[in-house]
Amino acid sequence: MSADAREHGPEPLLTAQERVRAFVDAPWFQTAIIGLILVNAAMLGAETSPRILDSYGGALHRADTLILGVFVLELVLRVFAYRLAFFRDPWNWFDLAIVVIALLPASGPFAVLRVLRVLRVLRLLSVIPTLRHVVSGLLRALPGMASIALLVSLLLYVSAVMATTLFQHTAPEYFGDLLTSLFTLFQMMTGDSWGAIAKTVMAHHPMAWLFFVCYILASTFIALNLFIAVAVEALEDDGDEREAPDRHDAILAELRALRAEVGELRRDTPTP
Amino acid sequence: MSADAREHGPEPLLTAQERVRAFVDAPWFQTAIIGLILVNAAMLGAETSPRILDSYGGALHRADTLILGVFVLELVLRVFAYRLAFFRDPWNWFDLAIVVIALLPASGPFAVLRVLRVLRVLRLLSVIPTLRHVVSGLLRALPGMASIALLVSLLLYVSAVMATTLFQHTAPEYFGDLLTSLFTLFQMMTGDSWGAIAKTVMAHHPMAWLFFVCYILASTFIALNLFIAVAVEALEDDGDEREAPDRHDAILAELRALRAEVGELRRDTPTP
Amino acid sequence: MSADAREHGPEPLLTAQERVRAFVDAPWFQTAIIGLILVNAAMLGAETSPRILDSYGGALHRADTLILGVFVLELVLRVFAYRLAFFRDPWNWFDLAIVVIALLPASGPFAVLRVLRVLRVLRLLSVIPTLRHVVSGLLRALPGMASIALLVSLLLYVSAVMATTLFQHTAPEYFGDLLTSLFTLFQMMTGDSWGAIAKTVMAHHPMAWLFFVCYILASTFIALNLFIAVAVEALEDDGDEREAPDRHDAILAELRALRAEVGELRRDTPTP
Amino acid sequence: MSADAREHGPEPLLTAQERVRAFVDAPWFQTAIIGLILVNAAMLGAETSPRILDSYGGALHRADTLILGVFVLELVLRVFAYRLAFFRDPWNWFDLAIVVIALLPASGPFAVLRVLRVLRVLRLLSVIPTLRHVVSGLLRALPGMASIALLVSLLLYVSAVMATTLFQHTAPEYFGDLLTSLFTLFQMMTGDSWGAIAKTVMAHHPMAWLFFVCYILASTFIALNLFIAVAVEALEDDGDEREAPDRHDAILAELRALRAEVGELRRDTPTP
Repeated sequence: MSADAREHGPEPLLTAQERVRAFVDAPWFQTAIIGLILVNAAMLGAETSPRILDSYGGALHRADTLILGVFVLELVLRVFAYRLAFFRDPWNWFDLAIVVIALLPASGPFAVLRVLRVLRVLRLLSVIPTLRHVVSGLLRALPGMASIALLVSLLLYVSAVMATTLFQHTAPEYFGDLLTSLFTLFQMMTGDSWGAIAKTVMAHHPMAWLFFVCYILASTFIALNLFIAVAVEALEDDGDEREAPDRHDAILAELRALRAEVGELRRDTPTP
Repeated sequence: MSADAREHGPEPLLTAQERVRAFVDAPWFQTAIIGLILVNAAMLGAETSPRILDSYGGALHRADTLILGVFVLELVLRVFAYRLAFFRDPWNWFDLAIVVIALLPASGPFAVLRVLRVLRVLRLLSVIPTLRHVVSGLLRALPGMASIALLVSLLLYVSAVMATTLFQHTAPEYFGDLLTSLFTLFQMMTGDSWGAIAKTVMAHHPMAWLFFVCYILASTFIALNLFIAVAVEALEDDGDEREAPDRHDAILAELRALRAEVGELRRDTPTP
Repeated sequence: MSADAREHGPEPLLTAQERVRAFVDAPWFQTAIIGLILVNAAMLGAETSPRILDSYGGALHRADTLILGVFVLELVLRVFAYRLAFFRDPWNWFDLAIVVIALLPASGPFAVLRVLRVLRVLRLLSVIPTLRHVVSGLLRALPGMASIALLVSLLLYVSAVMATTLFQHTAPEYFGDLLTSLFTLFQMMTGDSWGAIAKTVMAHHPMAWLFFVCYILASTFIALNLFIAVAVEALEDDGDEREAPDRHDAILAELRALRAEVGELRRDTPTP
Repeated sequence: MSADAREHGPEPLLTAQERVRAFVDAPWFQTAIIGLILVNAAMLGAETSPRILDSYGGALHRADTLILGVFVLELVLRVFAYRLAFFRDPWNWFDLAIVVIALLPASGPFAVLRVLRVLRVLRLLSVIPTLRHVVSGLLRALPGMASIALLVSLLLYVSAVMATTLFQHTAPEYFGDLLTSLFTLFQMMTGDSWGAIAKTVMAHHPMAWLFFVCYILASTFIALNLFIAVAVEALEDDGDEREAPDRHDAILAELRALRAEVGELRRDTPTP
C-alpha cells in the first residue's frame, strides 16, 4: 500500500495529508494495530511472572519499547492526517492519554506508574468499533444514574459517620475511623459478609441489628431503584426508536382531509 | 440583597412577609444553605476522629452551634414567609424534625441522640431539587411493594418460629431465640453465608437442608417477584406518560364527527 | 349481627344456610378471624421462649386449644354455608389442610409435626384479600418457570454427579456423596462462598477452577434468563391489560360503518 | 408398531427408510428413550456411592453397556432414516458427540473422561421438545452478549495484570500469578468474599481499597448493563411478535379507500 501510494505520488489529487489519512484508515493498518495491542497484552501478562522476567526480561523490554514506538508513530501520523479534527474525537484523547502514561518516567517515586502501562491494552476499546459502541452506550447511561448515585453516597456518608461514632471503640477493625467505616459499609451494601460484621458489633451493642437491618434495606431498595431507572431509560430509548408515532399522525391527517372533503361535498350538494 | 431589600422598604408593594419570602427563595440563599450543610457534613465527619476532636474540639463545637443557629433562623424565616402553607409541604416537616432532633439535649441517658445530629446532612435531600425528585419517586414506589413486603414478613416470621423451635438447642448462636432467628433468616434471605449457617445446623439435623433450601427458594422467588412488580409499575408509569391514549380518542372523535356529517349529508341528498 | 339474624329468623326468605353464609361473610367476622390469627401468631412466637413456656405454658396451651376450636367451628360453618361450592375454591382446601395439620396428634414419633402448627399463621394469606391476590399472582408465574427450573435441575444433577466422582476423596465435606454435592452446588449457585469451596478443591486439583468457573457462568446465565422470562411474561400480562386492542377495533368498526354509509349515499345520489 | 410395520411391509408405498423413520419418530419410541435416559441418570448417580458400587458394580456396569448399546442403535437408525438430513440438525451433532464421548476408552491416562459419561443425561435436552426450545432461546441470547462479554474479559485481564504486579508479594494466595489473580478477580466480580480479600491486601497496601472499590463498581456496572441489554433484546423480540403494526395499516388502507370513494362521490354529484 505504501509502495502503491508512492507510485501515485506525482498525481496532483492526493496531498501528503490525504495519503497519510488513507494509510492510517486502511483496514489492514487497523488490523495490524489490533494485533500489536494483543501481542503487547500477552507480553504484559508474561512480565508478571518473575521466572519469565528473569529469562526473557531484556527481550521483552526491547519489544515493549518497539511497540510503544509504533503506537507513538501511529498517533503522530493520525495527528498529521486529521490535524485539529483529531482533537475533536474524545477517543483520540483517550489514545493520547494512554500513550502519554506509557511514556512517563516510572522510576524512583513514580514506580507505581509502571503498573498503568497495562492500560495500553484498553486501546482495544478505541480501535475495535463494536467495543467503542458498547462503551459509548455504557457512558451514556451514566448521567441518568447521577442523582441516585448521589443519594447512595449520602446514605453511605451519613451511615459511616453514625457507625464510626457508635462502634468506633467496640469494632475498630470495621468502624475504627471514617474511611474504614465507609469501606465496611460499601462492602455491606454489596451484601458481602454483612451478617458476620453485624454479629461482631452486636456482641457489644445488642440493638445494633436495628442499624444494620435498616441500612441493608435502604441500600438494597435504592440499588433496586437505580437498576430499574437504568432499565426503564434503556427500554425508552429502544421504544422511541421502534414505535412509530407518526403512523397515528398519518391516520389523523388522512381523517381530517377526508372530513374537509365531505364538508365541501355537503356544501356542493343542492339542498332540496 | 438584604441592603437592597431595605432600600425598597418604603415601597407599599412589598410587605415584610413578601420580602422575607423573596429572601429565603433567592437562589444565592439556597446555594449558601447547601454550602453550609456540606461544611457541616465535613465537620461532623472530622468529629469522628478522636485526634481531631482533641485538637480542635472547641472550635468545631462553636462552629456547629453557629451553623445550627443559622438553620433555626432559616426555618423561622420560612415559617414567617409562608405561614400555614409552610406546614403543608412534607419536606418542611422533614427539615423541622431534623432541626428539632439537633436541638434535643444529648447528655446523660440521651447521649445516643448525639449520633442523630448527622441526619442534618440529609437536609441536602430537601434542598437540592434533583434529590428531592428522586426521593419522591422512591417513596411513591413504596405502596406498590406493601403487600409483597407483608408476604416477606409472614414468611420470615413463620420460618423464624419453626427454626427457633427446631434448632434452638443445637445452634443457639443462630436460632437461640425468636429475635436471633429473625436476624439469621433475614441474613440468609440476602444470601449472606447461608451455606455455612445451614451446615452448622445440618451437623445435628441431617434433614435440615430441606428447611433451608425451601426457605432460600421461597425468599428468592418472592424477592424476584417484588423486583418485577416494582419494575412493571415503573415501566407502566413511564409508558402512560409516553403513550398518547388520547391520540386514539382523537381519531375516534374525528371519525364520529365525520360519520355524523355523512349521515346528515345523506338525509340532505334528494333521493331520486 | 347474630342476634339480628335470629330476629329475622321467621322470615321465609332466609334459610338457615343463607343466614350462616351472611354470618361467615360478614366483614366483622373476617376481621375477628384475622385478629385471632394475629393473636395466635404472637402466642406461637412467645411459646418459642422456654422462660415464657415455663411461666405461662398452661394458659398458652388452653388459649391455643380455644383458638383452634374457633377455627374448626369457622370451617364447619363455611362448609355448611357453601356445601359443595366450598370444595371448589383451592383456598378452602388450604385452610382445611392447615386445620387438619393442627389437629394431628403430635406426640411420640410425630413430635416434629408440632412445628407445623405455626403454619396456621399462613391462614392470613387466605383471609386477607390483597395477600390472596399477590399469592395467586406468584403461583401463576410458576408454570412459565417450569422448563427453566427443569434445566437448572438438570445442570445441578449432572454437575453433582461429576463433582462427586472427581472430588469425593479430596473434599468429602463438600462433595462426599451425591446429596452433599447437590447441596454444595446449590449453595454455589446462589453465589454463597463459592470461591472458598473452589479453593479447597483446587488445593488438590489445580485444574478444578475450570469446572467451577464454567458451573458459575452456566448457572448465572440460566438464572439471568429465568429472571428475564418471568419479567417478560409479567410485562406481557400487564401490557395486554393496559393496551386497548379493542380501541383499534372500535376505530376499524367505525370506519367500516362509515364506508358502508358513504357507499349507500353514492348509490342514492342521482348520477347526472 | 414394529409388528404393524412388518405387516404393511409388502406395500410398495413404504420403503425401508420410511419405515425406520416412522419407527424412530413414533411418540412411544421417544418416550422409551426418555425413560432410558432417566434410568441411566439414576444409575450414574448411584455409581458415585462406593458402597453401591461395591455391591452392584457388575450389574450396573452391564446395564450401562446395554443402555449405551441402545443409544448407539438409535443413532444408527436415525442416520439410516434421515441420511444426510440427519447431519443438518445441530441437535443431532450434540447427540452424536455425547455417544462418541461415552464410547471413548476411559482407562489409563484418559480416566478423567469417565466423568464425561454423565453428559449422556444431557440428551434429555435434545429429546424433550420444551427443553430443546428453552436451550435454543438461551443460545440465541448469546451473540447479543458477545461484545459486553469481551469488555468484561478485557476488564478482568487488565485488572489481573495490575493486581499481580502490585500485590504478588504481599498476597500470593490471591494474586501470586496471573491465573490466580484472574480467578480471584472473577470471584470478586460475583461479589463473593471480596471484602475479606481486599482487607488482606489492604493490611500491606493501605491505598488498595481504591483499586478494589473501582473494580467492584466497574464490574457491577458492566454486569448491570449486560443484564439490561439481554432483557431489552428479549422484550423487543417479544414486542415485535405481539404488536400488530398491520392493524394501523388496516386502518390507513380503509381510510384511503373511503377517501377515494368520497372523492368519486363528489365528482358524481351534480354541482348546482
